Amino acid sequence: MSEHCNHSWLLTDLYELTMSAAFFENDCNPTASFELFVRSLPPERKYLLVAGLEQAMDFISNARFTGADIEFLRGLPVFHQVQPGFFEYLRDLRFTGDVWAVPEGTVAFGEEPLLRVTAPIIEAQLLETYLIATITYQTMVASKAARIVYAAQGREVVEFGTRRAHGPVAGTTAARAAYIAGCAGTSNVEAGARFGIPTFGTIAHSFVMAAPDEEEAFERYSRVFPDSSVLLLDTYDTLAAVDKIVAAKLQPRGVRLDSGDLAELSKQVRHKLDAAGLQQTKILASGDLDEYRITELLSQGAAIDGFGVGTSLTTSKDAPSLGGVYKIVEVKNQEGKSYVAKFSENKMTYPGTKQVFRFSDRNGTFTHDLIACAGEEYANADELVEPMINAGARISEQPPSMQEIRSRARQQLERLPSELRATTGGGKYEVQFSQELQRLLQLARDHAHAREHSSLHSR
Amino acid sequence: MSEHCNHSWLLTDLYELTMSAAFFENDCNPTASFELFVRSLPPERKYLLVAGLEQAMDFISNARFTGADIEFLRGLPVFHQVQPGFFEYLRDLRFTGDVWAVPEGTVAFGEEPLLRVTAPIIEAQLLETYLIATITYQTMVASKAARIVYAAQGREVVEFGTRRAHGPVAGTTAARAAYIAGCAGTSNVEAGARFGIPTFGTIAHSFVMAAPDEEEAFERYSRVFPDSSVLLLDTYDTLAAVDKIVAAKLQPRGVRLDSGDLAELSKQVRHKLDAAGLQQTKILASGDLDEYRITELLSQGAAIDGFGVGTSLTTSKDAPSLGGVYKIVEVKNQEGKSYVAKFSENKMTYPGTKQVFRFSDRNGTFTHDLIACAGEEYANADELVEPMINAGARISEQPPSMQEIRSRARQQLERLPSELRATTGGGKYEVQFSQELQRLLQLARDHAHAREHSSLHSR
Repeated sequence: MSEHCNHSWLLTDLYELTMSAAFFENDCNPTASFELFVRSLPPERKYLLVAGLEQAMDFISNARFTGADIEFLRGLPVFHQVQPGFFEYLRDLRFTGDVWAVPEGTVAFGEEPLLRVTAPIIEAQLLETYLIATITYQTMVASKAARIVYAAQGREVVEFGTRRAHGPVAGTTAARAAYIAGCAGTSNVEAGARFGIPTFGTIAHSFVMAAPDEEEAFERYSRVFPDSSVLLLDTYDTLAAVDKIVAAKLQPRGVRLDSGDLAELSKQVRHKLDAAGLQQTKILASGDLDEYRITELLSQGAAIDGFGVGTSLTTSKDAPSLGGVYKIVEVKNQEGKSYVAKFSENKMTYPGTKQVFRFSDRNGTFTHDLIACAGEEYANADELVEPMINAGARISEQPPSMQEIRSRARQQLERLPSELRATTGGGKYEVQFSQELQRLLQLARDHAHAREHSSLHSR
Repeated sequence: MSEHCNHSWLLTDLYELTMSAAFFENDCNPTASFELFVRSLPPERKYLLVAGLEQAMDFISNARFTGADIEFLRGLPVFHQVQPGFFEYLRDLRFTGDVWAVPEGTVAFGEEPLLRVTAPIIEAQLLETYLIATITYQTMVASKAARIVYAAQGREVVEFGTRRAHGPVAGTTAARAAYIAGCAGTSNVEAGARFGIPTFGTIAHSFVMAAPDEEEAFERYSRVFPDSSVLLLDTYDTLAAVDKIVAAKLQPRGVRLDSGDLAELSKQVRHKLDAAGLQQTKILASGDLDEYRITELLSQGAAIDGFGVGTSLTTSKDAPSLGGVYKIVEVKNQEGKSYVAKFSENKMTYPGTKQVFRFSDRNGTFTHDLIACAGEEYANADELVEPMINAGARISEQPPSMQEIRSRARQQLERLPSELRATTGGGKYEVQFSQELQRLLQLARDHAHAREHSSLHSR
């Protein structure tokens, strides 16, 4: 289930390791809590759909350094003055802490903690890079896919984009995220095998071009897949291709349009198919589609039964990154606890471990969220952040199935206010911070100022 | 060296496998040639820098189906009517064909074949998804990185973006592509270990926040890394942090700015450092940088010695996908050869296997390229497409080292006309098609029309 074959802790940024060495050599490895969140949503998004947690959990549970990893690190010039004890410590390092997280398939918003790690600071720190990359990528794709599925108004959307993803591995995890968000499946066979996602396929232009002629190509394919063929129409001339299917008395399950005026062509193809008694043959469309183009096609009355969506989905093309961060919020020091906050320009971080409380109206529609300190209590609200790993061990033996995650996503999306689901137009979900959290922020601010003041004067 | 731990041919789109079954069951597996190219560059790009070939070669050489893969495929409903012989064929399938490609580190343009596969059509077809995803992603990142390195005018650029890449594996290959394009190195330790790329690291805000105070954090770190510390200034107050470094008599190798007005702050920090005799301490900057922002900072006289660039680099944020395609151009049928071309709207493909000839002026500056049929000859031109795999075996036992690829990239970029290297402004490189290639296109067109005509009349 992991994104990567190995679970090497080398999948991190070098500063996590230099900081680890500094903590270790200073004999300082306090328990710290880090929270992963997206500071603010890109202008093109009104909500997030959380995904990628399972791959994060798998990495956390299995991360380690191999002997070869350790040898590599010892050979890096930056570590030449670091004592052997540090590398012995790394050799045995396993994650021993706790993880809380928002389950996959949950709707979330900017500033809301999606995952919290509480562990000896070296362990918590080393996970940063992997966790941000894994959770924000899948969350970004799921959030995009949910918009595309919504735009298709109940028609099937199939994820077709592995070839345009940022490498084949990204394509495979994108397929997973897209399925969580409601896509019917993927063209990626590896994703089918690894995650149990339905796989879909049609034919390519090359198949038609490799045959002596188009009729022969259609007949060859239909002979092998009599019930399931989806024939591609646009290799030479879309409408002429339909005539050939009819003349050859083929009964394809579907036909695919991949270029030209999809709205107009789909109507003409539908007309020809119906006239030939092929009412059962579905029309699928592909070719640079996204939620905006799909909305436009349907508003033009396109006779399209399903969409294959690639590039825009696997790259989240109009918003290809989420500003995911992983920030320290609490350190257990000798005195007990210290709430830490960051105040640099435009990049403030709220201190302390948090919970997200979600409020709904009587119909179940979400009305607003409240980010509060962990441990606060609010009646009639759902708590989004749940325990996942306790002292290094996964709490649930059996992670949720893809069907469970997908079903949660569907229910969550149905409870979003309709203006947030709409692919265009405004609408911003209300996220508040609790009074207790704001008090804690003020305390941390006062504390930092006092410290700053005393330290400048003591030197 | 592979991007993925296994080399499963399941990393493909389902239609490659259904088409394979159709070819197999129709007893038709002719030798075909496919070419991989980018149809046209995004408006934000004026050239491509080729990367990713080594990972593609590795996959081609090692791709296979495991027993579990075969069982998975046999269980898919779409294959229930396919005969066992097909799965036995897959079980033993290894790549047996030829591959030609443009070496990594070469400058290229739209429509130019970056890679050509000639093999039994089933083998050639199965590779499509992996090859497009691998080569276009690294090429996209290398092309972006080359622009960023150019903008930095000789200052070091370090790739910092794994956490914002489309998953940690994408981040690791992005580091490789960025290094090819001239970045000094990466923060990604796995990329350092796998590809031998220099790794760089500073400290994070969390390190400062976890210490009792900022001075203590700086001192702890400098104790362990006396020669190599790069201290982060903006956790609380950038200029006050410099005062603390000076007061504590630390001599960091560098300091890092990560927020605020980087141009103004860098000048003030430089002034303070110089006044304290810390002329040797370098100033590094990070925080949502790209080629435009770096150009602006340097035009404002920013006192910055090096840049850490993340999101914009690993996601190629302003152009996060390249329209990479892999098209059939030739089939060897009973009569010898058939040149295949595609004529669907706006998506024409030139037939036949090709070579790219590059012409230069007397200074070595590239003047124009000519895409011609493989086998054509032109004096005084470089041929970009080279043989890489012959009958399934890699031609060179020793793939080029990262240093060789990087050095080729530097030389190639230096030979680009200056208006193409510039990060802003127009300029389009001239790419022509040979007369022979145009004649072949016309032949294929006539042939297709004739076939169309006769086939419509014969039914």
